Amino acid sequence: MSFRIAIIGLGTVGQGFVELLREKRTYLKNKYTLEYEVVAISDPVKGSVYHDEGLDLLEILSLVKKDGNINGYSSGNKGWDSLKTIKETGADIIAEITPTNLDTGDPGTTFIRTALQEGKHVITTNKGPIALHYRELNKLATENNKILKFEGTVLSGTPALNLSLSTLAGADITEIRGIVNGTTNYIFTKMDEGRNYAEVLKEAQRLGYAETKPDADVEGWDALAKIVILSNVVMGADIKVSDVERKGITNITQSDIQQAKRENKRYKLIARACKKNGKVNARVSPEKVEESDILFHISGVNNAIVFKTDALDCVTISGPGAGRIETGFSLLNDLISIHQTTIK
Amino acid sequence: MSFRIAIIGLGTVGQGFVELLREKRTYLKNKYTLEYEVVAISDPVKGSVYHDEGLDLLEILSLVKKDGNINGYSSGNKGWDSLKTIKETGADIIAEITPTNLDTGDPGTTFIRTALQEGKHVITTNKGPIALHYRELNKLATENNKILKFEGTVLSGTPALNLSLSTLAGADITEIRGIVNGTTNYIFTKMDEGRNYAEVLKEAQRLGYAETKPDADVEGWDALAKIVILSNVVMGADIKVSDVERKGITNITQSDIQQAKRENKRYKLIARACKKNGKVNARVSPEKVEESDILFHISGVNNAIVFKTDALDCVTISGPGAGRIETGFSLLNDLISIHQTTIK
Repeated sequence: MSFRIAIIGLGTVGQGFVELLREKRTYLKNKYTLEYEVVAISDPVKGSVYHDEGLDLLEILSLVKKDGNINGYSSGNKGWDSLKTIKETGADIIAEITPTNLDTGDPGTTFIRTALQEGKHVITTNKGPIALHYRELNKLATENNKILKFEGTVLSGTPALNLSLSTLAGADITEIRGIVNGTTNYIFTKMDEGRNYAEVLKEAQRLGYAETKPDADVEGWDALAKIVILSNVVMGADIKVSDVERKGITNITQSDIQQAKRENKRYKLIARACKKNGKVNARVSPEKVEESDILFHISGVNNAIVFKTDALDCVTISGPGAGRIETGFSLLNDLISIHQTTIK
Repeated sequence: MSFRIAIIGLGTVGQGFVELLREKRTYLKNKYTLEYEVVAISDPVKGSVYHDEGLDLLEILSLVKKDGNINGYSSGNKGWDSLKTIKETGADIIAEITPTNLDTGDPGTTFIRTALQEGKHVITTNKGPIALHYRELNKLATENNKILKFEGTVLSGTPALNLSLSTLAGADITEIRGIVNGTTNYIFTKMDEGRNYAEVLKEAQRLGYAETKPDADVEGWDALAKIVILSNVVMGADIKVSDVERKGITNITQSDIQQAKRENKRYKLIARACKKNGKVNARVSPEKVEESDILFHISGVNNAIVFKTDALDCVTISGPGAGRIETGFSLLNDLISIHQTTIK
C-alpha cells in the first residue's frame, strides 16, 4: 500500500519535510517497504495544489525557491483551503505543520481534530495543539482508530519522545530535566564568552535562530510548551500551560554570567518536571548548572534531556533541537512509525 | 494472554531481572496489559526448578540470598538442565542470561538457537551469540516467526540499540562512536585524578566493576563485542570479531594521562564504526578526546554513544552501561516490546 499524504503548512519545516520525502523515497521503499505520494499541499501564503496522482516534489521545491509560492504548479486543482484539503483529497495521513499558537492552539488544533474525525492519521510538529489539547486529541485518535504522532514538538528530530515512550517503556520516569530551547542556549553560550545579551540576540536573529519578536524563546514560552507536552505525554500528567511557573532569560546580565563562572557554573534555561506522590510539577527558569552536570556541557543550539527513572537512574539524550531538515526528519520518523504499526 | 517465561542463567543479571519481574508485575499489567509467569529457572550452579503454574519469585530470591542456590524451592521439578528447560516447560519466552563467551558464543548460542527452533521468543543480554552469530540467529527468528531481542548487549538498559533501530529509523547512520565499557571508563576517570593504573584496577575489582581476570574489559574485548553488534545490527554490516582492530588500555600510563591533560584532553576507550561506500570499518582503542567532545564529559562507569546521521548530524545517548538492575531492565523492555508486537 502507498500512503497518500496531504501537507498543511509549507513554511521552513514543511519544505524540509518535502525535501526529505523526495530524497528518501528509494531508501524508505527498500528499507521499510514504505511508499507514498504527496497528493496535496495547502498553505495560506505559499498557495495550494492538489493532484490525485501525486505531486512532483522537485517541481514544488523549485517553485518555492523561485517564486516564493507554488501557484505556478503545472497541473492539478489550485486554491483549496486547508480544511477542504484535509477533507476532500483522499489523504490517509495529514502532516500538520502550521505555526505554534500557545493561546488557542489554532488553527492547528482544528486541522488535527478535523483530520482525526475524518479518519486520517496525523503527524505534526505543532506544539500548540499538543501542549493545549493532548488528552482530547489523543482520545479522538483512539476513538477513530487512527494514529497521532508528534515527535517534532520536542527536540525536533532528536527522538526524545519516542525514547521515553517506547525504548524506556518499562521504566517509571520520575523526573525530566533539560535544555529544550536552542535559541536561549545559543545566547547563554555566547554570553559565556563575555558578550552581552542584546548583541548576541541580534546575532541569533541574523542567523535565523531567533524570531524578530523573540519572546517565545527568551521569555521561556517555547520551553514551557515542551515541558507541558513531556509532562502530559511521558509522565501521564494533566497539567495546563498556566500551571507551569515560567521565567525567561532576559533578566540575566553579563555580571550574573561572570558570577556563575566564578562558582564554576553556567546559566542554562532549564525546563523540569518532577513527579511526586502521583502529582507532576513543572517549571521553566534559568538555573546555574554545575560542571559535573551533563547539561553544563550542552552548548550552542544543541538540546538535551535527562530522564530520571527508577531502574536506570539517569538516561540522557542530546542532539539538535531545531532546524528545517532536523524537524522535517521528525515527521519522516512519525511516518515510518505509522507504516510499521499499520502493516502488522 | 499471559507469557510463560523460562530463565536460563541466574547470575547477577538474572537475579536483577527476577527482582524487576516481581516488583513491576502490577505496573506492567496496568500500564501495558502485560502479564507473565516465570515457569522455570535453570542454572548449572544455582540449580533448576520448573513449576507449570509459575514460580514464587520472592521465594526464589530469598533462597538465592540465603543458600546461594534454589535447590530448596518448595515445589516443582528440580534439576532439569538448560536444554530440557528450554524444550519441555512450555515457555513462550526464553530469557537467555548466561555468561558471554567471545570465542565460540556457547553455550548461549546453542540455547538461543534451540529456543528459536522450538518456536520461542528469545530475550538475551549475552554478547557472544549476537556478536558472533547475529545473522544466523536473526534469520532463524524470522523463519520461525519469532522475535529475538538483545537490548542489554550494548549499554545495558540504556536503550542504545532501540534508539538507533526504531526512533532513528529514517536516518542513515554513518558513524557510531562511543564509550561502551564502564570499567575502563572508571579506570581512566580515576587516573585523571592522578592515581595509577594498578591501584585503580584493584579498586574497580573491589567495587565489582572489574573481574578478577580483567582482560575482557581492559584489553577491549567487551567494547569490541559491542561495536561488532552495533555495526552488524544498526549499520547492516557483516563484520567479524577478527575484523576489528583492538587496543586495550593497559599501555596508558599516568604520564600519558598527564600529557593529555596538558593538551586539555582526556583518554577514553573509544569504540567506533564508520560506514564509507557501503563498507563498515570498526575499531576499539584509547583515544585522546577534546573538551568540546561530549564524550570528554562522560565519567565513571557511565557510557555514551554518539550516532552521526545524515539528517540529524549527531544524536547522543548516555546512561548506565552496566549493573544488575540496569541490565535486568533491558530484558524487561525487550519483554514489553515482544508483548506490544504480538498483541497487534
